Amino acid sequence: AAQDLLLAAAFVSDAQYNRNIPFRTSPEAVRLYHLYNHWMMRTATYFFIFLNLSLALFEEPAVYPLPFLATSVLEVLCLLVFLGRLTHFAHVTLHNVFWKDAKNICIMGAILLSLTDLGIYGVLRLYGVRSIRWSRFMRPIFLINFAESRQIRRALRSIRNTLPEITYVFLLFMFSLLMFSLMALKLFGERNLQTAEGLPYFRNYLEIVFDLYVLVTTANSPDVMMPAFDFSSWYALFFIAFVIVNTYIFMSLFLAVVYNNYKKHLKNEIRKLAYMKRRKMIEAFNLLKEEEGEQFVVREARWKQLVKLVAPDTSNSHRELLLRISDDEQKGFVDKKSFVQLADLLNIQVVTLKIRRHPLARWAPALYGSAPSRLLRGLVRHRAFVWTFDAIILINAVFIALDEDSISYAEWVFLALYVIEILLKVYTYEPREFFGKTQFWNWFDTLIIFAALTATILNATLQSTMRYNSQQILDIVFILRVLRLIRIVDSIQRFQVIMNTLINIVPTMLTFGGLTLVVYCVFAIIGMELFHGKIQYFPANSNAPHALECGNPALKDSLFARGKYCKNNFNNFASSFIVLMELTVVNQWHVFASAFANVTGQPAKLYFIAFHIVMVIIIVNIFVSFILEAFFVEY
Amino acid sequence: AAQDLLLAAAFVSDAQYNRNIPFRTSPEAVRLYHLYNHWMMRTATYFFIFLNLSLALFEEPAVYPLPFLATSVLEVLCLLVFLGRLTHFAHVTLHNVFWKDAKNICIMGAILLSLTDLGIYGVLRLYGVRSIRWSRFMRPIFLINFAESRQIRRALRSIRNTLPEITYVFLLFMFSLLMFSLMALKLFGERNLQTAEGLPYFRNYLEIVFDLYVLVTTANSPDVMMPAFDFSSWYALFFIAFVIVNTYIFMSLFLAVVYNNYKKHLKNEIRKLAYMKRRKMIEAFNLLKEEEGEQFVVREARWKQLVKLVAPDTSNSHRELLLRISDDEQKGFVDKKSFVQLADLLNIQVVTLKIRRHPLARWAPALYGSAPSRLLRGLVRHRAFVWTFDAIILINAVFIALDEDSISYAEWVFLALYVIEILLKVYTYEPREFFGKTQFWNWFDTLIIFAALTATILNATLQSTMRYNSQQILDIVFILRVLRLIRIVDSIQRFQVIMNTLINIVPTMLTFGGLTLVVYCVFAIIGMELFHGKIQYFPANSNAPHALECGNPALKDSLFARGKYCKNNFNNFASSFIVLMELTVVNQWHVFASAFANVTGQPAKLYFIAFHIVMVIIIVNIFVSFILEAFFVEY
Ligand code: NA
Repeated sequence: AAQDLLLAAAFVSDAQYNRNIPFRTSPEAVRLYHLYNHWMMRTATYFFIFLNLSLALFEEPAVYPLPFLATSVLEVLCLLVFLGRLTHFAHVTLHNVFWKDAKNICIMGAILLSLTDLGIYGVLRLYGVRSIRWSRFMRPIFLINFAESRQIRRALRSIRNTLPEITYVFLLFMFSLLMFSLMALKLFGERNLQTAEGLPYFRNYLEIVFDLYVLVTTANSPDVMMPAFDFSSWYALFFIAFVIVNTYIFMSLFLAVVYNNYKKHLKNEIRKLAYMKRRKMIEAFNLLKEEEGEQFVVREARWKQLVKLVAPDTSNSHRELLLRISDDEQKGFVDKKSFVQLADLLNIQVVTLKIRRHPLARWAPALYGSAPSRLLRGLVRHRAFVWTFDAIILINAVFIALDEDSISYAEWVFLALYVIEILLKVYTYEPREFFGKTQFWNWFDTLIIFAALTATILNATLQSTMRYNSQQILDIVFILRVLRLIRIVDSIQRFQVIMNTLINIVPTMLTFGGLTLVVYCVFAIIGMELFHGKIQYFPANSNAPHALECGNPALKDSLFARGKYCKNNFNNFASSFIVLMELTVVNQWHVFASAFANVTGQPAKLYFIAFHIVMVIIIVNIFVSFILEAFFVEY
Repeated sequence: AAQDLLLAAAFVSDAQYNRNIPFRTSPEAVRLYHLYNHWMMRTATYFFIFLNLSLALFEEPAVYPLPFLATSVLEVLCLLVFLGRLTHFAHVTLHNVFWKDAKNICIMGAILLSLTDLGIYGVLRLYGVRSIRWSRFMRPIFLINFAESRQIRRALRSIRNTLPEITYVFLLFMFSLLMFSLMALKLFGERNLQTAEGLPYFRNYLEIVFDLYVLVTTANSPDVMMPAFDFSSWYALFFIAFVIVNTYIFMSLFLAVVYNNYKKHLKNEIRKLAYMKRRKMIEAFNLLKEEEGEQFVVREARWKQLVKLVAPDTSNSHRELLLRISDDEQKGFVDKKSFVQLADLLNIQVVTLKIRRHPLARWAPALYGSAPSRLLRGLVRHRAFVWTFDAIILINAVFIALDEDSISYAEWVFLALYVIEILLKVYTYEPREFFGKTQFWNWFDTLIIFAALTATILNATLQSTMRYNSQQILDIVFILRVLRLIRIVDSIQRFQVIMNTLINIVPTMLTFGGLTLVVYCVFAIIGMELFHGKIQYFPANSNAPHALECGNPALKDSLFARGKYCKNNFNNFASSFIVLMELTVVNQWHVFASAFANVTGQPAKLYFIAFHIVMVIIIVNIFVSFILEAFFVEY
């Protein structure tokens, strides 16, 4: 019976967290499964996945160089952890299911290939031969394929489902692009026009296609038009037509296709999840059910044992509340229909509405209940208290804007006022309530203020003892000081609604963070292989040869060198990420593409076009779809 | 009875075209109302509205200068036409309705003010005083307020309804912008950094706000980040956070708000239209109804008279079909329920499915029915015929791409082939069917081919008689030649679907054309008043002073002059439109804003920010919403 309970708890827990792992039902396997889902095991897995990804920071080309031996040991450690996790999973799940699941095969393949690659690279290194660490491409596989990353896999599935339709629109868009390029070649090709840089204008078909693709992203508008426009004003019509058709209509069409599929896919996923949740709850019910009259039910005692197992942190009162809902007629048992709802009930965050007594009211009732204390609490609860501190924040904003000194006397006054405010609030309101899970702003305030206090004191100590201002600490103090002002937003009802929408979508945005991380990792590693060392950054006033051309004479007179973009290169993992971020923002991407094409070869532009298609046309559009949908649901 | 019929026809016609004009029901007024809605009257009104708007091309500062007298006479003519149209409307509608309608008051006010302004300007001109033609701002009022522009007014209403919510999001966005600017001032203000142009970097709060607003539009990425990034790589995090919060989240939020309201508004409008349509049809029914047994009905004869009046162009067979639907049990009358549906029935385009006999089959049956003729028609109907011509188009594409001569021998061959194709198709298929209203591609082909044929022959004639190649004609020939290739798209089923979606949304896109025209007109006229003559364009190799600085020493070393943007100015109406188009595309808009601020004053930047907010944040987002919605409905 205890084993049935444990198994049922596993089913309910899976239903609650929307997990879908076909685990074995033997007592030992169920116990292993509970361990497998323990939050510490999951956190550890994530930790090693990110450690493995961040190794790129320490391997050549390194941001912070570590000896090869150190990174190798770390990598082997990560791979062993992954293998351990996978072995654990193999013991939990059914054998034929395990071997049929592409995810597991992927992970095993990736571990094996990584070890092989590491071995070969190490041996070759001993003999002084430098080879490519190609297995580094496979590191994002661990982020995608471990059972924990369901959300990322779901997003990837959504992208895969969208691909056929995207492809058709993309082909039509390419057709339009090629037609317009052909027109441009015929219209401008024989005019002997020159660009602002004095280069030939629109002579070569492939270059025209690239220039017009860049125009679709608007990045070279209006430069690409000016030579033709200067020649004859009527030619502006060609570019207007081009922008309307390609930038406005086709790019909106991409968003429409992605959004349409996103909605459709979301609906299907939700339906599937609901079905699975119900099935798991019914399995749990069947394990615990007993006959009662004409129906099967779960008796109160067992039900309570189950809830204690599934949600050990819930208070007695909360459990009683759940029971009251599930057994609303107080018959001493829960029927099937009510039992199935348990998974959803457990997910509802119960705001304890009952007014807890303040701890001080228990420890020092006479003092806490005295007239001055009650007056104080009355003042803090009064609206004027909020208004006073809103006024103080506004005055603080003026001080920050005007203040020329690094840390002034006024700053201490404001910090003291904010600390007093928080103490008064904690004195007035029940502390556990004040720092409840949903009290985002209270947490925000307190963290910001105490971080600022700590940093300011630290800085003052450093200054008085060592007569030294730490720039990093000062920067953090500045940022914290400005962040404090955000609080004013929470005082205005309409802004609260929008802010809450924004705060609620943060968790799902992490999925996009993961997706972006995967795409960035892959492109960063390819980019480093292709472009590493081709472009160098020299500090201002450097005497190095070609310092003004980013160390590469091929960049002489290029927009890249003229814009002083040299630090945007693929020389290490961190730089690559920043370049990719700038490419995601799109502006000036053609300057980057041309520069890296100049220092390697023209086909390098394909790398930048591929990144634009994957990141901007697909992932950013999915992000926008997600914001649209989240907004419609929340608002 | 004849008058009742006329009145009922007016109601039905209003219901069919979703008009909502409360006209008087006296016989004379109804006749005037029919005249008022005549397509020639409406076309004439539009003609004069656009003539009035295009006067800006001929008035100082003129693209094509005309004497002041000529433009004044034209303007007075337009105003008289507007007055006439309004008087006509006043005779049609009820007096109290007419005077309560803000639209009519607006038009009258605009006419009066325009005449006054024209008078004052003319008199001052006689005395040699130049004043501002401020009434030109009011010209778009005619486009908005005449009863014909319901769609544009609906879009404007939708914008007005969206404004409060947009404003809240905008305020929050501005708050975020100001906070980030304050942080930037604190972090970078005292570092003594310089931009790539050697100017001080992030020293002045207002300049930081502008620079970061530009970064929201991505237009100065990554330039705005580079000095800080060169100083310390960690500062890139500030800009990444800024872009994620402001560019990705807030800009998507604007789209979400606009789209949400657009959908809501659309639903309301459709509900209102359906209600009005029904009410008008019931009014028409009540005029024509007769008692039949226990219910009121409209008898067949009257019903036919009505349809003849409302839709005089429909054929007898079409009318019979409509009757068959409305009186499906052939009782000789139409009941109320069926009668109400008439307005929708009239809007359905009936594709005549019956196979009409080819005219040649009637005129020369022996020839048309002969074996060779039947074989020929069989060939044309065969799939291989389509494939052959697809292949020809592909070969043609290669020829166009490779062909260096202006018009070659091959071009004549291709033109001949295409003409033969069209003739064969017209020989095989019934011509009226082939050129049916919904046969977009047949029309497209025929027009393109015959235009190309005409232009090519014209060019050949000019060349052989006057040994002269007209560049304009050649350009048109080039464009037509490439457009021909679009046909290939129609051969692929999947592309057809997307293309049909695109073709179907063209009519509604005209509404956005109108809306854009209104916004552009207003901003162009303001722009010309503010910036006229400040920036000049000189052809290459000009000897004029400051030719390289667009005639204005204030632009020395500016990005504007360096990018050779001088022709982008507000010196006339056409140039202004092109500048506004480039501002709509957003890229490099800050270069324009800074240049025009340098030659006038820093507050000029507000003009550009205002245009960005109105055009990009509001109207382009409505356009995207519209494409999204149209796509979901069509696809
Ligand atoms: Na841009």
